[in-house]
Amino acid sequence: MEKQAPIAVIAGGGDLPGIVVRSAMEQGRDVVTIAIKGEADASLSVFEPIELGWGQFGKLYATLRARGVRDVVFIGAVQKRPDFTSIWVDFGTLWRLPRIISALFSGDDHLLVKLAGLFEREGLNVVGAHDVAPGLVASPGHVAGPKPDAKALIAMKLAIEAVDAVGRLDIGQGAVAVGKRVVAVEGAEGTDAMLERVAGLRANGRVRSRGASGVLVKCSKPQQDLRLDMPTIGPQTIHKAAEAQLKGVCVEAGRVLVAHRDEVERLCNELGVFLYGCSRGEDFETGDQ
Amino acid sequence: MEKQAPIAVIAGGGDLPGIVVRSAMEQGRDVVTIAIKGEADASLSVFEPIELGWGQFGKLYATLRARGVRDVVFIGAVQKRPDFTSIWVDFGTLWRLPRIISALFSGDDHLLVKLAGLFEREGLNVVGAHDVAPGLVASPGHVAGPKPDAKALIAMKLAIEAVDAVGRLDIGQGAVAVGKRVVAVEGAEGTDAMLERVAGLRANGRVRSRGASGVLVKCSKPQQDLRLDMPTIGPQTIHKAAEAQLKGVCVEAGRVLVAHRDEVERLCNELGVFLYGCSRGEDFETGDQ
Repeated sequence: MEKQAPIAVIAGGGDLPGIVVRSAMEQGRDVVTIAIKGEADASLSVFEPIELGWGQFGKLYATLRARGVRDVVFIGAVQKRPDFTSIWVDFGTLWRLPRIISALFSGDDHLLVKLAGLFEREGLNVVGAHDVAPGLVASPGHVAGPKPDAKALIAMKLAIEAVDAVGRLDIGQGAVAVGKRVVAVEGAEGTDAMLERVAGLRANGRVRSRGASGVLVKCSKPQQDLRLDMPTIGPQTIHKAAEAQLKGVCVEAGRVLVAHRDEVERLCNELGVFLYGCSRGEDFETGDQ
Repeated sequence: MEKQAPIAVIAGGGDLPGIVVRSAMEQGRDVVTIAIKGEADASLSVFEPIELGWGQFGKLYATLRARGVRDVVFIGAVQKRPDFTSIWVDFGTLWRLPRIISALFSGDDHLLVKLAGLFEREGLNVVGAHDVAPGLVASPGHVAGPKPDAKALIAMKLAIEAVDAVGRLDIGQGAVAVGKRVVAVEGAEGTDAMLERVAGLRANGRVRSRGASGVLVKCSKPQQDLRLDMPTIGPQTIHKAAEAQLKGVCVEAGRVLVAHRDEVERLCNELGVFLYGCSRGEDFETGDQ
């Protein structure tokens, strides 16, 4: 059997890149790890990554070519837009600069989609983290923690509806419902910040604390390119959901990554927060309406 | 000409109740001001309000009857749900308690709608603040500050679309778009907290600070009972919009209250933040799409 070409994992922030690298290695793939300077986590150093800054597209492409890489995975958070006014660019970047600038600065969103386009122009194939690490994807149905009760299913249904509406408008991927009311919708702040907000709303009495079931729902946007930007939860999500006094976390099965799955499930059981994999349009038979 | 019956203004928090009381008086109405204990602002004291707690429905109804009140306005923020476990209830409240409890605690939202129902059962007529203070309602078109440019109109259009979607789901009334991206959607936290969030997103680099126009949009929900709960902006909104580096504030004309209108317009001009009154489905001719 011919050995597969090595895969490049281009790593932004957080610990997900490390999980993906390890998972790909476990599948028997050779992995070239590229750490984006100023974004990638220090924990990635065990994989001896090649560290490259935003100005080093030229060196990056040359490296990938030299190593025989055909498939590229982008994974991890990219918090900041590259600031080309304050960095040196290498020669390979320089001659591609008009294209790079037009890709990264023309509009104001979809940085990753444009970045992927740049890589495809170089003959590289952009694949999803779930392609090289299929075990990371959320499973359908009840996964861990207590079983969701009827009240939780009602909240879940409302939050799914909200996520669906804001997802279609390309705004966000998450929402929290408590009882029969959606109390928070995720925008650019991200899921953790939204959960902290809900904890604050509990504390200041704007969302009542007792009697009503609260659920976080996180789904992909319908038009989302899952190769580039798959919604993710991890142990932190379960901790913050518990701090916001939520009963559970519901993710779209097959379209959300669960990082540190064992730890997530252990926390769900320990903190009494359920994890549920839903699908769009799933009928929960809540007995409501 | 027969004198109109006095109107009761039942005042929650903030300075809007005082503005409504003054405005109703300027229209020649006799006003009975009722301050909700623990909610109403100290500044209301100039109107010598009758202070009543959540346990005093009996006394409240008796007072309104004795004063010949027929119309009641609810105005101001009610931050906390009444906690009947820790207050004494008067006799009139006591015999109405089953009804009050069922109204206030059956579901978990629409406290005001249920409260209004309780008043209507007593033969009182619940009217809107805009009925007694029509000058408080937002005007259509460009009102103050710089004229919105094409970029601002694009952001405005996107944020209106977002507010429309979350409004239909009864989630919230506000959204902020920066450039071609909706970055924040209002849930239970309220507009000020959402604007603070956007200022934070600017500061931490998740929403870029230069080059893109940002706009706050605030509209009523389509199904909203404007007598009970009309969205409101005031000087604080303009200050916080400026702190979030927004170019303007857009409110639904006729369906949003502008408190301290003169001060709001002065601030718009001083801080360079436009105020615009839109209508749903308005065509902005942004030249986009």
